Amino acid sequence: MAKILTNRKDDYAQWYNDIVLKSGLADYSAVKGCMVIKPHGYALWENMRDQLDKMFKETGHQNAYFPLLIPKSFLSKEAAHVEGFAKECAVVTHYRLKNDPNGNGIIVDPDAKLEEELIIRPTSETIIWNTYKDWIQSYRDLPLLINQWANVVRWEMRTRLFLRTTEFLWQEGHTAHATREEAIEETKKMLEVYATFAEEYMAMPVVRGVKTANERFAGAEDTYCIEALMQDGKALQAGTSHFLGQNFAKAFDVKFQDRNNNYDYVWATSWGVSTRLVGALVMAHSDDEGLILPPKIAPLQVVIIPIFNKDPQAVAKINSIASDLMATLKQHNVRVKFDNDDNTRPGFKFAEYELKGVPVRITLGARDIENGIAEVARRDTKAKENITLDNLASHAIQLLDDIQKNMYQTALNFRNGNTRKVDSWEEFEKVLDENPGFVSAHWDGTGETEEKIKELTKATIRCIPINNEKEEGKCILTGKLSKERVLFARAY
Amino acid sequence: MAKILTNRKDDYAQWYNDIVLKSGLADYSAVKGCMVIKPHGYALWENMRDQLDKMFKETGHQNAYFPLLIPKSFLSKEAAHVEGFAKECAVVTHYRLKNDPNGNGIIVDPDAKLEEELIIRPTSETIIWNTYKDWIQSYRDLPLLINQWANVVRWEMRTRLFLRTTEFLWQEGHTAHATREEAIEETKKMLEVYATFAEEYMAMPVVRGVKTANERFAGAEDTYCIEALMQDGKALQAGTSHFLGQNFAKAFDVKFQDRNNNYDYVWATSWGVSTRLVGALVMAHSDDEGLILPPKIAPLQVVIIPIFNKDPQAVAKINSIASDLMATLKQHNVRVKFDNDDNTRPGFKFAEYELKGVPVRITLGARDIENGIAEVARRDTKAKENITLDNLASHAIQLLDDIQKNMYQTALNFRNGNTRKVDSWEEFEKVLDENPGFVSAHWDGTGETEEKIKELTKATIRCIPINNEKEEGKCILTGKLSKERVLFARAY
Repeated sequence: MAKILTNRKDDYAQWYNDIVLKSGLADYSAVKGCMVIKPHGYALWENMRDQLDKMFKETGHQNAYFPLLIPKSFLSKEAAHVEGFAKECAVVTHYRLKNDPNGNGIIVDPDAKLEEELIIRPTSETIIWNTYKDWIQSYRDLPLLINQWANVVRWEMRTRLFLRTTEFLWQEGHTAHATREEAIEETKKMLEVYATFAEEYMAMPVVRGVKTANERFAGAEDTYCIEALMQDGKALQAGTSHFLGQNFAKAFDVKFQDRNNNYDYVWATSWGVSTRLVGALVMAHSDDEGLILPPKIAPLQVVIIPIFNKDPQAVAKINSIASDLMATLKQHNVRVKFDNDDNTRPGFKFAEYELKGVPVRITLGARDIENGIAEVARRDTKAKENITLDNLASHAIQLLDDIQKNMYQTALNFRNGNTRKVDSWEEFEKVLDENPGFVSAHWDGTGETEEKIKELTKATIRCIPINNEKEEGKCILTGKLSKERVLFARAY
Repeated sequence: MAKILTNRKDDYAQWYNDIVLKSGLADYSAVKGCMVIKPHGYALWENMRDQLDKMFKETGHQNAYFPLLIPKSFLSKEAAHVEGFAKECAVVTHYRLKNDPNGNGIIVDPDAKLEEELIIRPTSETIIWNTYKDWIQSYRDLPLLINQWANVVRWEMRTRLFLRTTEFLWQEGHTAHATREEAIEETKKMLEVYATFAEEYMAMPVVRGVKTANERFAGAEDTYCIEALMQDGKALQAGTSHFLGQNFAKAFDVKFQDRNNNYDYVWATSWGVSTRLVGALVMAHSDDEGLILPPKIAPLQVVIIPIFNKDPQAVAKINSIASDLMATLKQHNVRVKFDNDDNTRPGFKFAEYELKGVPVRITLGARDIENGIAEVARRDTKAKENITLDNLASHAIQLLDDIQKNMYQTALNFRNGNTRKVDSWEEFEKVLDENPGFVSAHWDGTGETEEKIKELTKATIRCIPINNEKEEGKCILTGKLSKERVLFARAY
């Protein structure tokens, strides 16, 4: 087999692009910074979306849908928000095209200029809180627990497939509460939903933490996050949950009458994860042969590949065994395919399903079957075993469970092995360059120091871990007193 | 109870707006022509989407996602397409905002003008066929059967909630085939998927037909459609499936190598339904008290309402019966809710769930329960029955099935009673005004006559029904010879 992908150790960034393109997750598009999500990538995203959606509904949320376009003036209403989001927006200025009177195709009709420009949503706090004003009058209308699945656009200069694209798909939860405490509880609850999803479904361990003031969402009082470690030792923010205080309620004048007939502004949260998670999934687990997908969200979990010979009886027997196996696996809700396309050689198929990350491969060869066995290969460790035909289905089902657990454990071991406590500046710089990963170090708590460290090393404070051990120490840069360690890393 | 909605007979259009707003399906937004889909409306759309998605996958289609933004020049590439779609587009001209140096909030940064304007997709044929050029080389790459769930924007001057909005949600299938015959077969297959969905899930009978040349999709060789009849006698196009010939393949130069090493352009189809279907569902079935939703897609199928008295033992008994009933119904995958909120009177709840269209209501009253019965009301006919407690669950399940069938039959009877054969111009005009509905009449087959009839009566040819009976006759307007009747109506 010719090598399909660049090796990770040779060029990690190139390996990532290769794998995304060649495994059929996504493709570049004709529009700068926008990607096409191909069927394999979209099926993966669908499985992630459906599981998250289930978890949102189980925690009492309902879906709704708000407009794509936001009046420009809305962005200005929340002071911090405008600073964070007004910069990199796609702006709609006209609503009609017409034939060029000079015969040069179509042109924008200058008579169809909008009175107020519209922005394609980079996030929906403003349009949603403008709507909530009409929906919330009394404590009886609270809590309002709404989520939206949508596309958003942020005009990015440097884009990378899934990790940073001009348009991306995401969900954004927007909730309204009667008290500060309830809103903070919601913020933390949704962070835990994200963490559970990342760990149990994506097999990707995450650190739950709080962002520093510098890294907060524009308009938030606190931003909680989950941070994951990629195989190259860089961190990736995988989801955020924001406690917005009363900032948006004040900006859009959303008050409610409480049980004692007093009026107060409503308390808010917002939280989101995006198609970026697909990029995280790729970089957390995959190898030089292709994707390694966790069984719980893999579009295809088991592939059965026949090795036919010319004996029609043997072919019939393979087909019959495959058909029974498919039926049994489907009964157990396993997503399974029998690839009996005889225009393609088995070796090519092996490579193709490896590339696409199918967790379990069962090979049905005529000779093996005469001996009552079949070869079962697992994608994560590449281990192969001969299994008796009677036990194929139950073995495959057990293997899916094992792979899910093993993938998590492998990623956890990697993260633990690449999280280092560091107590001096010299060591800090050395570790970042020689053993990239999470660096747990003391920091004096100021934005200036944080900024300076970023300038010097490109490392940022990923988060202050929740339930952080209190430990006094000295800031690695300034030597000033610090009450706890924070987690640094270079990041995507 | 105060009357919540305008009566249909007093003002059908106002009734429609009232019901959409007050039942919680949708709300107006701050952006002209765009609506907010509220949780009840979105849950309904989700159920419709999930069922359609299942049917698309069962017919071999995969989902993918293409960019929201389309380069302006793409729209010009297919000659008919540009005429149909280039007019009413949202145009992105800039990619950045900045603070007004004069201190008046934020303004569009004149330095951030795009070299080529981008259009928010009104439909995605152009961007998708531009991509297919890279995906299709050989007959082995065909058929390519892809669907996309997405939002689209068409700048409409007159909008109505769900029926015609500037932004709407939809799915668009885009398939590529090696032969004309296969593409036509696909076009018809997807029309049948839509018709089956409308009839079996929405309980809405539809006429399957072909559009006249005047009414074809811009860029299609043939447009197939399903047409439904609303309660006010107006028709509504509920879905379309287009045979695109080689038009888009030629516009975007998509050729494939066949088995004999010859090259030819690829054959295409596209097909779509949208959130417009929610409007159709409302207008096909609902009444002056509110929505009537078909059980198969109703977000909530059964609501249980207790009538508590002050006796704690009776309350405990009602709660226990409700709890058992909920468990049994959930086991049978019934979407059920026990509304025991005691801040709201039962009468108010009855009206609220009627408004929201919940198919079955079970009332648990203390006195009834002593007698071993409970009242079960069906939303479609408003019939009520006392059912013994032991039979409540099985009765409710059976009732859901009955309601689904009865709603379809009622709508079918209405359509049959309002489809009239007409053979003279005088009768044609009279029927349109006095008995609005489908009018089956002869037409001479010319676009001029079709246009003239539209000018004179506002009636359009909804379709030439598939499997139309061949019958010679004379055009109602021109008296010229005609080989078959076509279906006229005033339409949404």
